[in-house]
Amino acid sequence: MTIRIGIAGYGNLGRGVELAVRNSPDMTLMGIFTRRDPATLTPQFPDVPVLAWDELAGGREDIDVLILCGGSKTDLPEQGPQFARNFHTVDSFDTHAEIPNYFSIVDDAARAGGNVALIATGWDPGLFSVNRVMAEAVVPQGVTYTFWGRGLSQGHSDAVRRVAGVAGGVQYTIPAEDVLDAVRDGEQPELSAAQRHRRECFVVLEEGADPEAVAAEIKNMPHYFADYDTDVHFISAEELARDHAAMPHGGTVLRSGTTGTAGGTDVENSQVVEYTLKLGHNPQFTSSVLVAYARAVHRMAQAGDVGAKTVFDVAPGLLSPKSPAELRRDYL
Amino acid sequence: MTIRIGIAGYGNLGRGVELAVRNSPDMTLMGIFTRRDPATLTPQFPDVPVLAWDELAGGREDIDVLILCGGSKTDLPEQGPQFARNFHTVDSFDTHAEIPNYFSIVDDAARAGGNVALIATGWDPGLFSVNRVMAEAVVPQGVTYTFWGRGLSQGHSDAVRRVAGVAGGVQYTIPAEDVLDAVRDGEQPELSAAQRHRRECFVVLEEGADPEAVAAEIKNMPHYFADYDTDVHFISAEELARDHAAMPHGGTVLRSGTTGTAGGTDVENSQVVEYTLKLGHNPQFTSSVLVAYARAVHRMAQAGDVGAKTVFDVAPGLLSPKSPAELRRDYL
Repeated sequence: MTIRIGIAGYGNLGRGVELAVRNSPDMTLMGIFTRRDPATLTPQFPDVPVLAWDELAGGREDIDVLILCGGSKTDLPEQGPQFARNFHTVDSFDTHAEIPNYFSIVDDAARAGGNVALIATGWDPGLFSVNRVMAEAVVPQGVTYTFWGRGLSQGHSDAVRRVAGVAGGVQYTIPAEDVLDAVRDGEQPELSAAQRHRRECFVVLEEGADPEAVAAEIKNMPHYFADYDTDVHFISAEELARDHAAMPHGGTVLRSGTTGTAGGTDVENSQVVEYTLKLGHNPQFTSSVLVAYARAVHRMAQAGDVGAKTVFDVAPGLLSPKSPAELRRDYL
Repeated sequence: MTIRIGIAGYGNLGRGVELAVRNSPDMTLMGIFTRRDPATLTPQFPDVPVLAWDELAGGREDIDVLILCGGSKTDLPEQGPQFARNFHTVDSFDTHAEIPNYFSIVDDAARAGGNVALIATGWDPGLFSVNRVMAEAVVPQGVTYTFWGRGLSQGHSDAVRRVAGVAGGVQYTIPAEDVLDAVRDGEQPELSAAQRHRRECFVVLEEGADPEAVAAEIKNMPHYFADYDTDVHFISAEELARDHAAMPHGGTVLRSGTTGTAGGTDVENSQVVEYTLKLGHNPQFTSSVLVAYARAVHRMAQAGDVGAKTVFDVAPGLLSPKSPAELRRDYL
């Protein structure tokens, strides 16, 4: 009996979920649900049913877990509580400041429907969050750092493309390697996000645009670039298409701390915990995380659990298709 | 109401637990229990009660979780099931091949006593195990590598010291940096543990001993060194005491895989997940892990759970002293 998965929304994330379910022998993809006309949508695997959004209304007996693949800005605030009433769900809600409120409304809906709804998973929030909590719990005296990149930032790329004179472009967030190495060596510098990262832009100019004016406008843009060390490179439209179409990302969570001074000495024993992701395809990795957590949601629901959950509530073994006995024998 | 901890056994691990409980405001150390004469034992903090082993017989109302700090070879196979009958327990059992059997006998005892007994935690087995399972669950197509070191290996140091003509010495296990970097870059080489590591020995000779004969005997020692690239350095007793008294260790779990080929291309998207520990003091870090899992055991017991558990059964949030609402607000 496989776990029957539904995909709600078919952008980059939905496409990644489709691939990840295909790579999970214990799961079956029951359908992709879209707000578009289903006839206009071509899934990556021709045997996957594409169905209209309305088919989700009121729940479905043939779906064990519905994976919500919409965005955090407008889709999930509405869809999260709506679907949690009729389905066990997983989502990647990532509007940080709204998480407590979102948890609360999804929790109410999930409890009303007797469902499990896991919110805010992916890699950050998600696997990075797990590592921040576990490293701090094990090394309570210390400092936790999160570095992002090298990776393509969608929001910053959009900001670059809005500048007058810019025909196209992308932005990469890059961690300051010297700071990363210092923390890896047990140092605990006090640095802002702007001091821990730099930004690199690859820009295609519109005909006749002034490169110096464009570079200056990007570098001085408040919030996005003004506080950062930013490089702007001008390239051709061909180079942009050829060299910058991939969606790499990743980052590092580092905990640098000490476990005290033992044996009458005053030497602090340094303890450094690092978690690093190097992702060739950001949405596909996020989707793979959603699918692993869908497995956990199914098992938690089968065990009688209800309500909204986060990655902090999920035991690692629930993510694996292997049995507890296999995990103990082969992975401890 | 703090979590009341007992320490059973007072070697390096017990001393580390004493420090880690001291660094945990939500815990109180109720006593160190020793098989030695309690009067001969000096704890690191003078206010900690030192009590005789017999005081543990039949359980104690004043201890919420008993942390077993004995060794895996002779102590834990006896103590694990014995104490799980009367206490909630945590241990660092690490005899890999015996884990399924040990789990089973501890599980029987814990269930008979209505207790929770978490076995085989620390960093490997322990945090490394969690990372092997989570990374494979998220990236099912790939290969997982575990590298150990740079670190002092107690077993290999003992083997060096047993060689005729050796007055003292230590052995460091060192990961092959070129292999590590290749895996970090997404390669998936097929290599044995001996090909992924080298060994470095620092040896003090007995007077009149032949350095060439000693080096040859170490390098050719079956199981321990013969399959490895091994360096032997001869140093003075003063240098050994001055430069090699610390107990550093650590290592890396790397998962290198792909999430398939998307969008009609045949490019495999590389996804690399890395977890690295750089430990200034190996036993203190292991002890800190035991203490964090003691917190989880207490909470699982309070929630009505019983039986033997492993790190795969423990939700990350249970390790943290913070509340679920705080974790959601500040760590997601």
